[in-house]
Amino acid sequence: MNKRAKIKDIALKAGVSPTTVSRALSGTGLVAEPTLSHIRAIAETLHYRPNISARNLRTQKTMSILVVVRDIGNPFYLDIFKGAESIAHDAGYSLLMANTEDDPKREADYFNMLSDGRADGMILMTGKMPLDCDLPHDISQKVVVALEMIDNVDLTHVVIDNEYASIEAIDHLVSLGHQKIAYIAGPIPEGMSVRRLAGFRHAMMADGLKLPEAYIQQGNFSYQSGERAADRLLDLPDPPTAIYTANDEMAFGAIRAAKKRGLSVPEDLSIFGFDDTYLAEAFVPALTTVRQPCLEIGRRAMTRLLAHLSGDNPDTDSIVVPTEIVIRETTAPPPQKTYHPSS
Amino acid sequence: MNKRAKIKDIALKAGVSPTTVSRALSGTGLVAEPTLSHIRAIAETLHYRPNISARNLRTQKTMSILVVVRDIGNPFYLDIFKGAESIAHDAGYSLLMANTEDDPKREADYFNMLSDGRADGMILMTGKMPLDCDLPHDISQKVVVALEMIDNVDLTHVVIDNEYASIEAIDHLVSLGHQKIAYIAGPIPEGMSVRRLAGFRHAMMADGLKLPEAYIQQGNFSYQSGERAADRLLDLPDPPTAIYTANDEMAFGAIRAAKKRGLSVPEDLSIFGFDDTYLAEAFVPALTTVRQPCLEIGRRAMTRLLAHLSGDNPDTDSIVVPTEIVIRETTAPPPQKTYHPSS
Repeated sequence: MNKRAKIKDIALKAGVSPTTVSRALSGTGLVAEPTLSHIRAIAETLHYRPNISARNLRTQKTMSILVVVRDIGNPFYLDIFKGAESIAHDAGYSLLMANTEDDPKREADYFNMLSDGRADGMILMTGKMPLDCDLPHDISQKVVVALEMIDNVDLTHVVIDNEYASIEAIDHLVSLGHQKIAYIAGPIPEGMSVRRLAGFRHAMMADGLKLPEAYIQQGNFSYQSGERAADRLLDLPDPPTAIYTANDEMAFGAIRAAKKRGLSVPEDLSIFGFDDTYLAEAFVPALTTVRQPCLEIGRRAMTRLLAHLSGDNPDTDSIVVPTEIVIRETTAPPPQKTYHPSS
Repeated sequence: MNKRAKIKDIALKAGVSPTTVSRALSGTGLVAEPTLSHIRAIAETLHYRPNISARNLRTQKTMSILVVVRDIGNPFYLDIFKGAESIAHDAGYSLLMANTEDDPKREADYFNMLSDGRADGMILMTGKMPLDCDLPHDISQKVVVALEMIDNVDLTHVVIDNEYASIEAIDHLVSLGHQKIAYIAGPIPEGMSVRRLAGFRHAMMADGLKLPEAYIQQGNFSYQSGERAADRLLDLPDPPTAIYTANDEMAFGAIRAAKKRGLSVPEDLSIFGFDDTYLAEAFVPALTTVRQPCLEIGRRAMTRLLAHLSGDNPDTDSIVVPTEIVIRETTAPPPQKTYHPSS
């Protein structure tokens, strides 16, 4: 390995002062052509790269962005990472993975990294602000909230319209002829779950359908919880002909529950998911679901954050990214006769 | 927001010089008790946190580790991230997501970040070294290779035994009574695909089974490619009774192909996956597969990297993490009569 070229090596070779080299390479506009090009050409020949820690100390920039999630192991975040990373990389930024596991100390740690200048910005996807830590004084220009909303904070939010997405899903089931539609909700009172449930109730009311309270069951987003919730629904004396779920994994669990008691999906029971995770299409039968535009959420959140960081756009108005329903193989008209458990 | 406490604020309050404070807080061992505890207590009261860029300039450490993958959107990496992150976080390090998308410029970029001191270490999961960039002179102490092996480099590798995993899978199918066993391989000549295929050939030979070349089909790890490869196998005049695949997604595709032509899995056809991705258990039928211990791979890779960085263990001997086969619902004894396509 050869020794790393320094500013003074370039200065020597170019016949100018180290200060001139430094000004030329940092793009201050203080060095005119043709000296500028001459210095840059020499720097390139010598494979010069700046000492980043020294530059960061001067510019107070780390060129890194924290991406804060509750559970780094959840595949749901992947396309958001991917979208955010593509924009960040093009702008010369790196993403720092920040995993809170709902631990208040970790939640505070990452905000402290921002306050300490160990990261330049943050995309926050935990749905909550941390307790007990210093918030940066210019937080509105350093933090963008994505995916999960946080009430009463003046930060840019990049989100979907969860209520409207539920309404579209129910309208589709109703258009197929379903009247007995049940819902497997996510954990209440988490914001996302509350809004999807509100949309479900709203749609059922708007369509003039009866909604027994037993038609609303709660899960925790795992497929096991979806399977158990669907078991409770299918055990009802008057079971639903369609089940809408707050995420795809609970929908997969509901399909399992149906198959275990010999019901065919969608002939005997329609299932409607939410998210369009990567296996929704590969599942047998392929899942009808609400597609969250995760790549787009990631891209929009990072684009706004970079606009904040560069001072180009200080606005904190929210960005709502449209969802769409994807009709695949798990929804169909209701069966002619209602299914009754053979118990 | 209150003003950030500085070294001199602590010095003033403690009645010592700023140099003493600095020595006390950086743990140099030059300040004795009870002064040491006194200074630390004041620092805590004032919520003092060091200026990291300044400290990094002195210590040449960024406390960040690059985790380099081909495709940040692939759920397969999630548990590796999670395992690596848990170890790194406890040691005060953050993970930088590094996504190459097989772009040689990006592959070089991340090595340049190491050489420039913008990251302290790297876990490399792309299966290849970059072209055309400066490698750090102490690369063996800064880079650990995980998941995908790289031939002819003196770096610690944290891997599974792909050949042995294939042998275990085939032995299980043979123990069920299968003799006509086909394989859907990953992209050849990628190292991981080559080794799994070699294990398959080895096991078939060791078990004295015939292996027509048409029983080996190639996919690209997507479920669509698995579906197409399974179609080719099931169209053969003498189709297999079991299909082993190089990853779970291709196994899901093979199940789709079987169901589309009215075959039941596992009654008519057994399917054996590889990876134990998060939906293997939720799939209907739940997938029999080889479990890769991804959390453990992430933990072991990060533990070794931290041992390198701290100088505790400079060895570059490889670490082989054991796999296990997980028997679920997609494997059973072969049907009595061989299936013939009805075409």
